[in-house]
Amino acid sequence: MEDLSLSGKAVGKFLGVVKNTITEYRMIQPCDRILVALSGGPDSVALLRTLMALRTELSIENIGAAHLNHLLRKETAQKDQIFARNLAHEYRIPFFTRSLDVGNLAACEKLSMEAAGRKARYDFFHQLAAEHGFTRIATGHNRDDNAEQVLMALIRGAGPTGMKGIAPIRGIIIRPLIRLAKSRITEFLDWIDQDFVVDASNEDPVFLRNRIRNQLIPLLEKEYNPNIRKTLDRNAAIFQEDESFWETLTEKTYPQCIAFSDPGEVGLKISSLLELPPALVNRILRKALFQIKTNLHRISLVHIRAIRTLMTESPSGKTLDLPGQIRIYKNRQILSVRKESLPLRKLGRKKHPHSMPG
Amino acid sequence: MEDLSLSGKAVGKFLGVVKNTITEYRMIQPCDRILVALSGGPDSVALLRTLMALRTELSIENIGAAHLNHLLRKETAQKDQIFARNLAHEYRIPFFTRSLDVGNLAACEKLSMEAAGRKARYDFFHQLAAEHGFTRIATGHNRDDNAEQVLMALIRGAGPTGMKGIAPIRGIIIRPLIRLAKSRITEFLDWIDQDFVVDASNEDPVFLRNRIRNQLIPLLEKEYNPNIRKTLDRNAAIFQEDESFWETLTEKTYPQCIAFSDPGEVGLKISSLLELPPALVNRILRKALFQIKTNLHRISLVHIRAIRTLMTESPSGKTLDLPGQIRIYKNRQILSVRKESLPLRKLGRKKHPHSMPG
Repeated sequence: MEDLSLSGKAVGKFLGVVKNTITEYRMIQPCDRILVALSGGPDSVALLRTLMALRTELSIENIGAAHLNHLLRKETAQKDQIFARNLAHEYRIPFFTRSLDVGNLAACEKLSMEAAGRKARYDFFHQLAAEHGFTRIATGHNRDDNAEQVLMALIRGAGPTGMKGIAPIRGIIIRPLIRLAKSRITEFLDWIDQDFVVDASNEDPVFLRNRIRNQLIPLLEKEYNPNIRKTLDRNAAIFQEDESFWETLTEKTYPQCIAFSDPGEVGLKISSLLELPPALVNRILRKALFQIKTNLHRISLVHIRAIRTLMTESPSGKTLDLPGQIRIYKNRQILSVRKESLPLRKLGRKKHPHSMPG
Repeated sequence: MEDLSLSGKAVGKFLGVVKNTITEYRMIQPCDRILVALSGGPDSVALLRTLMALRTELSIENIGAAHLNHLLRKETAQKDQIFARNLAHEYRIPFFTRSLDVGNLAACEKLSMEAAGRKARYDFFHQLAAEHGFTRIATGHNRDDNAEQVLMALIRGAGPTGMKGIAPIRGIIIRPLIRLAKSRITEFLDWIDQDFVVDASNEDPVFLRNRIRNQLIPLLEKEYNPNIRKTLDRNAAIFQEDESFWETLTEKTYPQCIAFSDPGEVGLKISSLLELPPALVNRILRKALFQIKTNLHRISLVHIRAIRTLMTESPSGKTLDLPGQIRIYKNRQILSVRKESLPLRKLGRKKHPHSMPG
């Protein structure tokens, strides 16, 4: 097997950038066992080859590859799966694969195809990690993905937490290519003469991300800022620093605001919230929503603002409905976030038990 | 003189939104004396008429109007000036005007035409306020301006501080129309049958802002989010809350980081900076730059990042050059920000007095 770290200056420089990213974010510790998310596309293939090349230097104990077949475009999906399997075999590393009907999952869980695919992939990777003792899951996200993510957040109104883009490291997930431009990744694959598969869904303009990638970013690049990808990526890095500060502060402050916490419902003390700066209240509210809803899909600034208005301006007994069967109740000095078991339209406006006179 | 507050439901609703904005941000106190920045364009004309209508209700003591003639398009500029003067006379309020060659100012101070115009206007308004006892300066910025501002910041890489857009209130400057869409403002003028002048430079694609207004925002609206202006405006409001928190924290922490502070130079203790979360270090560095440079024009994320790299990775004695004849020196445990009196290219790399062995 070829040792990439000996293959010339340009390749060495590419590996150097990856190594710096790994070091800066402390992505890998000696003896880590790394599961590479291998779609077969250029990013994941470059990621696998890079980690194989850095394996000894970083004292990585073990590398495996995982491939989820989305069954969306049956024939190409089959081809991608075979490609990924062959690559893993060529490098004599364990290969894990599963086929899953993402279209079906999306319909069942009322998610977009993108969200359903993401959920299915990460569930699969985490399960493998738990079963086979992998300590890290590596994904091939690059700088361009990050720039796209920032624009998506801006367009959807996700606020500061959305602007931080793709986290270089989150739990056991690591993204060693996150500071590299897509163009450099394909260039790298070209230098080392490495094949990859192309995901045809990348061109489908039904997906917001594809329109941002294929239309909006090229326009911004041509007419507004030739370095827009780099600029957005740098923006995201700064926002990550801000958000990491906010996370610590929110974590510390959250327990002080809790009046009660049951499965499916959490009550916040309005008097405590009113003492905090508004920027922190926004985050406490998001954290409460996350606790009850287990995600923040379809929650945007408009909802956070509406909760604050309910809290400060509505009389006791009023409620507010949010996506995901979440209803917010204002009851005297308590603001409670509750996951209802019935669709809210069926539930009507009937009073919340907590708001009954005591 | 017509009393707008009696002129029908739609007009009343418009005035209500303005009043809510004024109340929410505590823009006006009883007995305030307000100077309206009156270009003659739709926003400033609507602003004047609105404040005249709310004058009694808000116990405003006095309203005046100020118009700066930029001398950029001589003939139309003259017409705009006459229009503004006539409007002020019609409403029997004091009118102040000055002509200033902004093109010349831009050339002298190496500013863009936009930046020079802005500087000239605010200097003029503040001077008038001081001389004539105005307690507030009101400008006609609206929600669309705010959305444009957010996109400009994003494209230029101004980071979180830029994303907050146009402050509804800053010092004695107030923006009562900041939550209103441009379309509602022109609608309002139409209802009350009020003329205004049109600034031809609003169409000039040389200005980044105009391209954002006339090309980028319509594209985003059509293909990505029909409510993009509102979304961006709401984003900005959330960022304003974040930034107001950061400002307080930075203000409190800054003095603890200062080693020395002279006119034209400030020294920061590296050991103190290293104890702070990176998000706060970014802001301390911006504050030090602002103290020495008196503005943050042409300073972007890339510079803040470069200062941090100098601080953590360079040996003592190294320097870094920034726009505006600013040079950063790393000298043992001190990071100093200094305004040089000579252009940096003439200054060369000669050592900083502070970095001489003691």
